[in-house]
Amino acid sequence: MLLRPCAFSKALARQKQFHIQTRSVSKFDIYGNSPVPANKKRFIPTSGTYPKGFLVGSTNVGIKPASKSQPDLILIASETYCHGAAVFTRNEFPAASITVSRDFLKRREGRGLRGIIANSWCANTLTGDVGIADATRMSKEAEKCLAGEAVDEESPSVMVMHTGTGGVRLPIENIVHGISKLHEGMGNSHDHWLEAARGLCTTDTFPKIISRTFTLPSSPDITYSIAGITKGAGMIHPNMATTLGIICTDAPISPVTLQKLLRAATNRSYNCISVDGDTSTNDMVAILANGAAGGKPISFHYSGRQKPIDYVSFRQILTEFMSDMAKLVVRDGEGATKFITIRVRGAPTYEASKHIASAISRSVLFKTAIYGKDPNWGGVLVALGQSLIDTRWDGMGMIALEKTSVSFIPGDGGQALKFLDKGKQGEVDPARAAEVMEQEDIEILVDLRDGEIVEGQELKEAVCWTCDLTHEFVDINGGFDTRT
Amino acid sequence: MLLRPCAFSKALARQKQFHIQTRSVSKFDIYGNSPVPANKKRFIPTSGTYPKGFLVGSTNVGIKPASKSQPDLILIASETYCHGAAVFTRNEFPAASITVSRDFLKRREGRGLRGIIANSWCANTLTGDVGIADATRMSKEAEKCLAGEAVDEESPSVMVMHTGTGGVRLPIENIVHGISKLHEGMGNSHDHWLEAARGLCTTDTFPKIISRTFTLPSSPDITYSIAGITKGAGMIHPNMATTLGIICTDAPISPVTLQKLLRAATNRSYNCISVDGDTSTNDMVAILANGAAGGKPISFHYSGRQKPIDYVSFRQILTEFMSDMAKLVVRDGEGATKFITIRVRGAPTYEASKHIASAISRSVLFKTAIYGKDPNWGGVLVALGQSLIDTRWDGMGMIALEKTSVSFIPGDGGQALKFLDKGKQGEVDPARAAEVMEQEDIEILVDLRDGEIVEGQELKEAVCWTCDLTHEFVDINGGFDTRT
Repeated sequence: MLLRPCAFSKALARQKQFHIQTRSVSKFDIYGNSPVPANKKRFIPTSGTYPKGFLVGSTNVGIKPASKSQPDLILIASETYCHGAAVFTRNEFPAASITVSRDFLKRREGRGLRGIIANSWCANTLTGDVGIADATRMSKEAEKCLAGEAVDEESPSVMVMHTGTGGVRLPIENIVHGISKLHEGMGNSHDHWLEAARGLCTTDTFPKIISRTFTLPSSPDITYSIAGITKGAGMIHPNMATTLGIICTDAPISPVTLQKLLRAATNRSYNCISVDGDTSTNDMVAILANGAAGGKPISFHYSGRQKPIDYVSFRQILTEFMSDMAKLVVRDGEGATKFITIRVRGAPTYEASKHIASAISRSVLFKTAIYGKDPNWGGVLVALGQSLIDTRWDGMGMIALEKTSVSFIPGDGGQALKFLDKGKQGEVDPARAAEVMEQEDIEILVDLRDGEIVEGQELKEAVCWTCDLTHEFVDINGGFDTRT
Repeated sequence: MLLRPCAFSKALARQKQFHIQTRSVSKFDIYGNSPVPANKKRFIPTSGTYPKGFLVGSTNVGIKPASKSQPDLILIASETYCHGAAVFTRNEFPAASITVSRDFLKRREGRGLRGIIANSWCANTLTGDVGIADATRMSKEAEKCLAGEAVDEESPSVMVMHTGTGGVRLPIENIVHGISKLHEGMGNSHDHWLEAARGLCTTDTFPKIISRTFTLPSSPDITYSIAGITKGAGMIHPNMATTLGIICTDAPISPVTLQKLLRAATNRSYNCISVDGDTSTNDMVAILANGAAGGKPISFHYSGRQKPIDYVSFRQILTEFMSDMAKLVVRDGEGATKFITIRVRGAPTYEASKHIASAISRSVLFKTAIYGKDPNWGGVLVALGQSLIDTRWDGMGMIALEKTSVSFIPGDGGQALKFLDKGKQGEVDPARAAEVMEQEDIEILVDLRDGEIVEGQELKEAVCWTCDLTHEFVDINGGFDTRT
């Protein structure tokens, strides 16, 4: 997320004393320093399998408040030059990291990259040319350490990411001095990766890290690894959420294919999540592939008459992997108490189903009701009806109330509650509904044709993930907490 | 607003006991029955000037909970058949009132209308054919009372409005019995109108009523009157908000002109407000013009070489009148503590400026920050940058950070705080900023060209109105209040 500009924080803190006293105290007393909430501990792995030929380091250079213990500067690098790709926020007023990284990636055409340097607690937005220079310097200093030689001044090989407070300048001298210290401590252990995940955190309540091994159809004897770290937790909405994501794999993938894969997987993962409907200025997800595990490069091109089976297989692997990363972001949405899956099926296309699911996922009334443990299926219908305004396909009569069913499916796999059955209210036991609404995970299934098969028409299904809107969310974003 | 379906309210109420005890108790203990908050009293007029030839009545037929004292059924009628027009929600799953009223209005082509019957506390959504039959019966029974004779079965002359809980049927027998009692008590006093305004309320904290007199250029000796009642306070977003609005005037206006006028004025008033971003199934604003004050009918057609000066004049009067009505809706947004004006100038067109203003007005992060008295101009920029995604004019280079200024203007007319000055951070005194953020009314001015005059290009300005997102909002919509 992009923390708000806080030039006025002290003056405002005085104004807020009254509110702090009258509101309950936030459980996130000091971001990044509080113990991980009990119900989030299960999301933090205690070990992992990390891709060959990558080194990870992190350090604390004093960007974050002094009271916090986690790192605020991290570097993830391949031991050799590798291929890379990235997707960036579509917000038209992007941070310096977006401008700089997009430029570097373009100049190198996705080849000859060394790594990614990222800082938390400073977003480097509204800093003009100085901000661009600072971001560029971060990249070059990191490259110098990694390469042990003079860098290519025109097209640095290290991408940059920022997250944190906007409108303030990076402490660039601290960062430059910190990089060499960070470089000395780099390694590829679980602890190295976990510490880097902690280093991305701001209002996150837990570090977000996933690793996995896989094989590809054409080389079943090679075990590849993929690992990723990501962050939440506010200003989260597609294109992109304010989130940062860094993914590394030791599979060999050609640059053009890597960009194509990342874009496709992002559209089904990070671009399917919403916490608060705001698209940040700093969002960026990048992938590095160094091929250190060997094998034939993955490419989407047909080779002879052979279908690109490795490409199809890896696209599925990457999409699932990135979906799991994106779900961790929602899981840690600011103040969230519920993890909500919105599944829409039966619209004319996947995009139409996703448009509807996304609209429901940002309905403030629906999300607030879910927080109140209210199975607000009426709110789902209102958001659905609203989402059809000005769509090209709404007038086709393909979506009608009398064909629509809405069910709430409990996270424990129990029986679905069908509140709306082809436009009519279903029979649902209130006691059972209350039980379901107590669960942390809830799926809303909106079936626009109630399973009806229309000949020649595929029933497209889309899934979005969101969380509830809570008192805690207002505490955090209204500044009614004890953040120092 | 559309209250949520509450079939599970009792079972859920038990679940919520815990939360009620741990959260501060809502100040809206029993909607519609609590005293008007001290800071809202100034919005309720103690007298008014009401249009000739209209009769207003209200009664209580037991739709609302027994503990509440205000009416839940109202009828506003012209003593003679008159002209009418209406705008309806664009939500694709509308309530029965929308379907029925749109149909009646179309059949009568805006002529020969008698009035509007409206109920609160039941939205008559998801009630199928029975709901349509109930709404139609309400209309016909009202017409029978008014006309004292058999009604036109094909095209009733009374429009219908509902607001309240969705998914439950109207107590139609109570309503039918109530209409004749209501009819006996009709009148045209301030008290009649005010009581009708109370009868539209649900989660509103105060009744919303405005009346005004005006003259027209071509008949300066005739004093016309216009009066309106409206309601909030949740599920409020353009096209339309869940709001109901009823406007009556004794000016003579031709039917086609009346519809054109209402649509134009709505686009600059009700379609410029947002409370929570949700567009309800029940939104409707209607106008009746009976010509009882005499004079020449207002028409948008040129008569000979004479410009339609009365039309232009009345369009301005109606737009200002409806803007004041719409602002009352925002003023009473669920849980709102701030009234926020978003003024955007310098986009290529009025529509482009409005698109940006509307995007800012629905930014959850911005609205929550304002509640926390944080001058979150960074959030304004994020929403602005996000609003440009996928617009046709974003690539024209017409909007750029280095041309953009953002100021906060206090409601007391004091000096503006220019936080962003042509893309650079402005110098603002923190103590003064804290003072400004204490005020109830705050205007955000986003100037995309900072006053720069571009030859041949009009600098279009648009205004939207919104409120903050508060703990109280979460209380109300999460059900954490003591509503019975």
